[in-house]
Amino acid sequence: MPTNRQFLLDSRPQGAASAANFKLVTGETPPLQEGQVLVRHHYLSLDPYMRGRMDDAKNYAAPQPLGQVMQGGTVGEVVESRSPRFQAGDKVLGQGGWQEYSVVDAEQKGALRKVDTSQVPLSYYLGAVGMPGVTAWYGLEKIIRPQAGKTVVVSAAAGAVGSAFGALAKARGCRAVGIAGGPDKCRYVVDDLGFDACLDYKQHPDAGSLSKALKQACPDGVDGYFENVGGMVMDAVMLRMNPFGRIAVCGMIAGYDGRPVPMTYPQLILRSRLTVEGFIVGEHMEVWPQALQELADLVAAGKLRPRESIAQGIESAPEAFLGLLHGRNFGKQLVKLV
Amino acid sequence: MPTNRQFLLDSRPQGAASAANFKLVTGETPPLQEGQVLVRHHYLSLDPYMRGRMDDAKNYAAPQPLGQVMQGGTVGEVVESRSPRFQAGDKVLGQGGWQEYSVVDAEQKGALRKVDTSQVPLSYYLGAVGMPGVTAWYGLEKIIRPQAGKTVVVSAAAGAVGSAFGALAKARGCRAVGIAGGPDKCRYVVDDLGFDACLDYKQHPDAGSLSKALKQACPDGVDGYFENVGGMVMDAVMLRMNPFGRIAVCGMIAGYDGRPVPMTYPQLILRSRLTVEGFIVGEHMEVWPQALQELADLVAAGKLRPRESIAQGIESAPEAFLGLLHGRNFGKQLVKLV
Repeated sequence: MPTNRQFLLDSRPQGAASAANFKLVTGETPPLQEGQVLVRHHYLSLDPYMRGRMDDAKNYAAPQPLGQVMQGGTVGEVVESRSPRFQAGDKVLGQGGWQEYSVVDAEQKGALRKVDTSQVPLSYYLGAVGMPGVTAWYGLEKIIRPQAGKTVVVSAAAGAVGSAFGALAKARGCRAVGIAGGPDKCRYVVDDLGFDACLDYKQHPDAGSLSKALKQACPDGVDGYFENVGGMVMDAVMLRMNPFGRIAVCGMIAGYDGRPVPMTYPQLILRSRLTVEGFIVGEHMEVWPQALQELADLVAAGKLRPRESIAQGIESAPEAFLGLLHGRNFGKQLVKLV
Repeated sequence: MPTNRQFLLDSRPQGAASAANFKLVTGETPPLQEGQVLVRHHYLSLDPYMRGRMDDAKNYAAPQPLGQVMQGGTVGEVVESRSPRFQAGDKVLGQGGWQEYSVVDAEQKGALRKVDTSQVPLSYYLGAVGMPGVTAWYGLEKIIRPQAGKTVVVSAAAGAVGSAFGALAKARGCRAVGIAGGPDKCRYVVDDLGFDACLDYKQHPDAGSLSKALKQACPDGVDGYFENVGGMVMDAVMLRMNPFGRIAVCGMIAGYDGRPVPMTYPQLILRSRLTVEGFIVGEHMEVWPQALQELADLVAAGKLRPRESIAQGIESAPEAFLGLLHGRNFGKQLVKLV
């Protein structure tokens, strides 16, 4: 049995998360039982939602238990199988967690899914053609519901969700405007992702300043907004929302790692008759097949070219995760485990 | 021609509104042209939305022009008519403004409506069976969309909108919980309006404390919330919202008269997958006939017994309006002009 290195949640953060919250342990993978498969992980996905699960607070998902392997999405290869549904060499997507190998009950519905890597690179199933991509699809299609010609905005535009959002919005004939941190990300958002414009929030000391820049980038106002960030960026966009604008709330990373960040102008919900709706993509499994198909088609057509930040080796996972929380990633954050 | 006293908007508030913003003038009503009627106002409606129009800010309605008669809903009696559609003695609802008489172009659609006072007292057409009642109806029926057995909460529960909301919610089999200011209002909300419970926000120093009390009053959590107030009260209710809860934003009076009041926990929109929707009832005229019919039926059946705060004489309008902004009214705020 191969040696397996894994990260456990060792303690819950007091305020900001730190590397000390995680503990690296080494063990052997257990022998397979009937119906199980052994998966060697090629990539681990790091996602902002993981920060919420580190707390013991009321949340939409159960907290990550202390002393257990950190949960997370993985792609990899079946190396041994005692299930008729999988064989060695199969490329698979699963919830393997922060470790190099996992033993999976292959009969459990949704635990493991074979993926086709002929058109779509394996790692993309954790990003553009995976949960983040479907997240963008749901927020755009089911909450914002844009018409061609309307203006939609997304924060964290260079990230896994934001980049998919841009491609999907352009495919619907919208004006797509991104917000990202730093000139490199903004250039990438426009040049590689095909957004119509991108604003660097780091150039703006406050919501008023960013809002003024948004007015230039969105001359017809903002009809739909996909929220990944919260705080000052959300305040700035809300000031530019058109009447009957729609906001899909997917994340508020600005407030994940410490004190909650308020919404400064809630009265705009009334004045502009906005609809603001929070959602969790895992609660809408019915849309996944349709969404994944569209995302895979966009990738195959070269219309969605996601970028990845790849950390090497399981030992790099905590620092890569903390970097993600502070926007130091550039595109989908992964850990390469092979 | 009768003498007409009227209040003009004389200046815009700097921060809080004050009596000095209004100016009382006296004149004669002009002679009627063909198609016009002269209405003697019996009651003027005072409503929180008027505060927003006093500012020159971007808003959903055009600002109240300086130097012109303050706009507002009125009920009264036709005293002279040069229109075939009305005759002296008709009881009518209109937008007569802060004055004792108005001259109305009777042919203009929606300018004047005859009302039936055989079952419903004339003043109710400015409250429970008028705009505030339809406001409650729209938020409950079209945004909150409650099922029987669910828990709905309304702030400013003793007010014109809140009292109608309670009757409508009970008619739908919901648990109705109010929030109001002071023990007298809370008693009235439960004893006279038929709410299941009412909380006095003045007994609570902060949102955490009010939220704890809400947990008692709403043992199954809160499924729908009708927001009239904003600020600390909204924060407290948001902490108790069930997953997929729905919030209708009708008003945020806490922030009308000075600095905007933030929403402290916007991350709850995500965590609890809430939908928060602002609306203006005047943009949904299609629901008015159905809503008014249900409200009139509830009044006739004794199931909606609205209370009124009646100030006497046009000269009392400014102080009554400022009192409304600070919750000093008890039920629908009117000015009696006859």
